Amino acid sequence: MKRTAFFISDGTGITAESLGRSLLAQFSGVEITMLTKPYIDTIEKARALADIIDATASRDGQRPIIIDTIVDQSIRDVIRQAQGFKVDVFSTFLEPLEQELETHSSYSVGRTHAIGSDDVYMDRIHSVHFALDNDDGARTHQYDQADVILVGVSRCGKTPTSLYLALQFGIRAANYPLTEDDLDEDGSLKLPRVLAPHRHKLFGLTIDARRLSAIRNERRPNSRYSSIDQCVQEVEQAAALYRSMNIPFIDTTRFSIEEISTRMIAETGLARRFSPR
Amino acid sequence: MKRTAFFISDGTGITAESLGRSLLAQFSGVEITMLTKPYIDTIEKARALADIIDATASRDGQRPIIIDTIVDQSIRDVIRQAQGFKVDVFSTFLEPLEQELETHSSYSVGRTHAIGSDDVYMDRIHSVHFALDNDDGARTHQYDQADVILVGVSRCGKTPTSLYLALQFGIRAANYPLTEDDLDEDGSLKLPRVLAPHRHKLFGLTIDARRLSAIRNERRPNSRYSSIDQCVQEVEQAAALYRSMNIPFIDTTRFSIEEISTRMIAETGLARRFSPR
Repeated sequence: MKRTAFFISDGTGITAESLGRSLLAQFSGVEITMLTKPYIDTIEKARALADIIDATASRDGQRPIIIDTIVDQSIRDVIRQAQGFKVDVFSTFLEPLEQELETHSSYSVGRTHAIGSDDVYMDRIHSVHFALDNDDGARTHQYDQADVILVGVSRCGKTPTSLYLALQFGIRAANYPLTEDDLDEDGSLKLPRVLAPHRHKLFGLTIDARRLSAIRNERRPNSRYSSIDQCVQEVEQAAALYRSMNIPFIDTTRFSIEEISTRMIAETGLARRFSPR
Repeated sequence: MKRTAFFISDGTGITAESLGRSLLAQFSGVEITMLTKPYIDTIEKARALADIIDATASRDGQRPIIIDTIVDQSIRDVIRQAQGFKVDVFSTFLEPLEQELETHSSYSVGRTHAIGSDDVYMDRIHSVHFALDNDDGARTHQYDQADVILVGVSRCGKTPTSLYLALQFGIRAANYPLTEDDLDEDGSLKLPRVLAPHRHKLFGLTIDARRLSAIRNERRPNSRYSSIDQCVQEVEQAAALYRSMNIPFIDTTRFSIEEISTRMIAETGLARRFSPR
């Protein structure tokens, strides 16, 4: 049975979509096409979308599921007239919250994802550029300004994680690759000298060697770099280093970038510079 | 009146926090401290958190607001016993959805933000590295693989937007800076030659000159680069180029990176390679 879900918002649609995906993920047996419709902020746009929803209902032979976070009542009324099963987030929860907080809600359009204060914006931009400037060990003299320094072998997820931490939380994350240059005579990995003064800021990433090999193969197929033997060796050396130095670490193999980042924050108590919007 | 809100999840907490912030943003008159508590995935962690919530209730003299997306019933029961005003997202909406979809929900722990298929992960990593490799005009020979090429003056928001598009949507976004090197003899900006073959992929960013000057001042204080005169001139030249070449563009001044990105997608019909999780 084919169903369609619409996540509708007068803003970015991030909240409606996030909630919608969480709810519908609980129904793994149903095939649901999910469509996000942001910036439905005029009556005209709402009418056009209501037509699309009605057409979808006819095509599917089932009414679509509608999850919306539209604040403006007149715009919402247009969507409500479309054929759909409505999950009405704001009207369900705002009224009891008004009673609890003993005040009326402002119902202001697109409030949450509007740009915050100038300071927040500057912090965010600064953090992104910090992550870029300090990516992959490119620069090490700013490590005293870093909130965290991610370490790990090439392609274990350091760069995307650093950038996510910067964008979502304003955390200044540098990252440093562990390579064969840092091997000791006995074949074990030693802590690179530039990292030694910042040991308390280090956080390790590890990864399943087969997965690493697959990721590296995308970049340099059939190379020593991507061979399973090389990957196994590098991953084992890195893990040994983490353990011997008491560096906290996460296995990224089965985690999304969101999970790696939020777990890291939860484990280390790293402070967000601002909150995601 | 001081209130505290807890956003609680057995996963990343992204959905609970996003929803919670959207709801509470409607109450601008109330000062609310917002705390996200992810990975509450054992009875022990739930008990410890329930103690914190009770202590907060005593301190505030008001019960905290609790917005949770915990799926496991036994864990949720522990949180329910804490003193709080509960906004119960899943139990409110899952039951009517079960009826509508005529099936039971799986209530699987931490479903949505788990890593997706390998393909999605690879696509995401690839897009992030694409954005990095093609940042700030560093490389131009991969523009045929780009989904979009952002153009604009230095520090108008190109890099953070490219990275957000990559991380959230897997969109391959290159970006190219418009500089004085591309000025014509008559002082107008001409389309840089490397961009000409990709005109249909271009998307312009513009920004208020005073804001640009403030952002640049963070980087190079009291320089010609950050002077208001210079910023006014560059911004005007860029806008004139967009208009003369029919390049779609967005003024980033009052928008967050989420808004710039989602508006761009909405306006251009740019396809996401995957959906945010």
